[in-house]
Amino acid sequence: MSDNDVAGDVLDRVRVVLVEPSHPGNIGGAARALKTMGLSRLALVNPRRFPDPQAEWRAAGAQDVLEATEVFDGVAAAIADCHWVVGTSTRARRIPWPRASAAAVAAQAVRTPGQIAVLFGREASGLSNAELQLCHTHLQIPAAEAYPSLNLAMAVQVVCYELRNHAIGHSESAPGVPGTAQWDRPAATARQLEGLFEHLAAVLARSDFLDPDNPGQTLTRLRRLFLRARPDETEVQILRGILTHLDRGPESPGE
Amino acid sequence: MSDNDVAGDVLDRVRVVLVEPSHPGNIGGAARALKTMGLSRLALVNPRRFPDPQAEWRAAGAQDVLEATEVFDGVAAAIADCHWVVGTSTRARRIPWPRASAAAVAAQAVRTPGQIAVLFGREASGLSNAELQLCHTHLQIPAAEAYPSLNLAMAVQVVCYELRNHAIGHSESAPGVPGTAQWDRPAATARQLEGLFEHLAAVLARSDFLDPDNPGQTLTRLRRLFLRARPDETEVQILRGILTHLDRGPESPGE
Repeated sequence: MSDNDVAGDVLDRVRVVLVEPSHPGNIGGAARALKTMGLSRLALVNPRRFPDPQAEWRAAGAQDVLEATEVFDGVAAAIADCHWVVGTSTRARRIPWPRASAAAVAAQAVRTPGQIAVLFGREASGLSNAELQLCHTHLQIPAAEAYPSLNLAMAVQVVCYELRNHAIGHSESAPGVPGTAQWDRPAATARQLEGLFEHLAAVLARSDFLDPDNPGQTLTRLRRLFLRARPDETEVQILRGILTHLDRGPESPGE
Repeated sequence: MSDNDVAGDVLDRVRVVLVEPSHPGNIGGAARALKTMGLSRLALVNPRRFPDPQAEWRAAGAQDVLEATEVFDGVAAAIADCHWVVGTSTRARRIPWPRASAAAVAAQAVRTPGQIAVLFGREASGLSNAELQLCHTHLQIPAAEAYPSLNLAMAVQVVCYELRNHAIGHSESAPGVPGTAQWDRPAATARQLEGLFEHLAAVLARSDFLDPDNPGQTLTRLRRLFLRARPDETEVQILRGILTHLDRGPESPGE
């Protein structure tokens, strides 16, 4: 099953609308951002230059998104068939509007049936007050006060990233550690680990390594280190192989 | 209080490292991405063109980040003083490594004191296996299977966005891992860990342990094991002490 079979629903219901973008590079960058996150529906309202070779260059492998991009002559037309409209905004407005983070918008989008539009404003000036007042919710990406000015395509990337994160339900967040489906070997059992620790203690006792006044703390620190790493079976085998080969004691294996 | 008073700590401790970027526009885009999210430390390893007017143009209001960008002639130098090294990767590797989402990395970064490096690979080919094996953790941005190829600066934006999200949202308690207030020793630096790995490889080469047909995989598995554990300084000292004492080579210490 492709991940779009899981994620596709909301990602197919979101239209990303760029309002009067000035730089065709940003249109291409936005197309690429959509496609990398599994979205495909890009719309433009009165772009200054489109189509344009710079848009194609920045779109890279997302030419299909660029070719399917719809162009409208006003925001109202671009959102006419949408059930939930979100407008991105970097600052609070004079008349406060419902506001949400990108993550909160994405979480709500997953739960909201129907067509969804996310509007992004002009590079220099954002969305007008009138355009923002067409929106149900205003989305703010938390940015540094000293320089909150995200590039337009970057903002699209962040929002699409959050949409995808929520669409797939964070199901990819399982870390790759021993014993999980992402790992190549089973995690070592407690018995296997105790075998390793006994072997280690025996080899170190036969060498002059251990501090005779305080053997325990060194062994405890080694135990803590290896337990923390949660070794897999192969790693335990390698470590025991090393111990066997380096053991200098009289009863050293090899026999 | 500016939000950087809250967020600043982890954002000031993260160095974003671009490895051999080809396009100066991406360097500028990355600088802007950092600054919008309150980060400031950008580093480059062997950039093809830098400084460059295209980088300056794309950086927009982040010229200060660009001017302070450090340039290194290798990844090892760029991460030498770092305590936690994260490498971005779009695909699973033959030997699985601990993997985490951008959000999980950001959550851990907030809790992890010390210097942090996040590596981003070449536009066309990413990080090499050898470079990924310098990392404690691999970061994967969940992307569409059909086209997982985020633009370099876009990937930087997403990771910096997550770092900021967690920096301003999460100041909660830290688990006991090396380097935290709950731990008793500082985390080992990348340089200290490389010293351990070189020592280990030399000792194993002098014994008959390594499979001459396939030394690399064993060493890679050991490297993965120890990086996963994030050893502290004392643990590295103990391990090197053991290696010195068990070394059977002709130039074996003791003299």
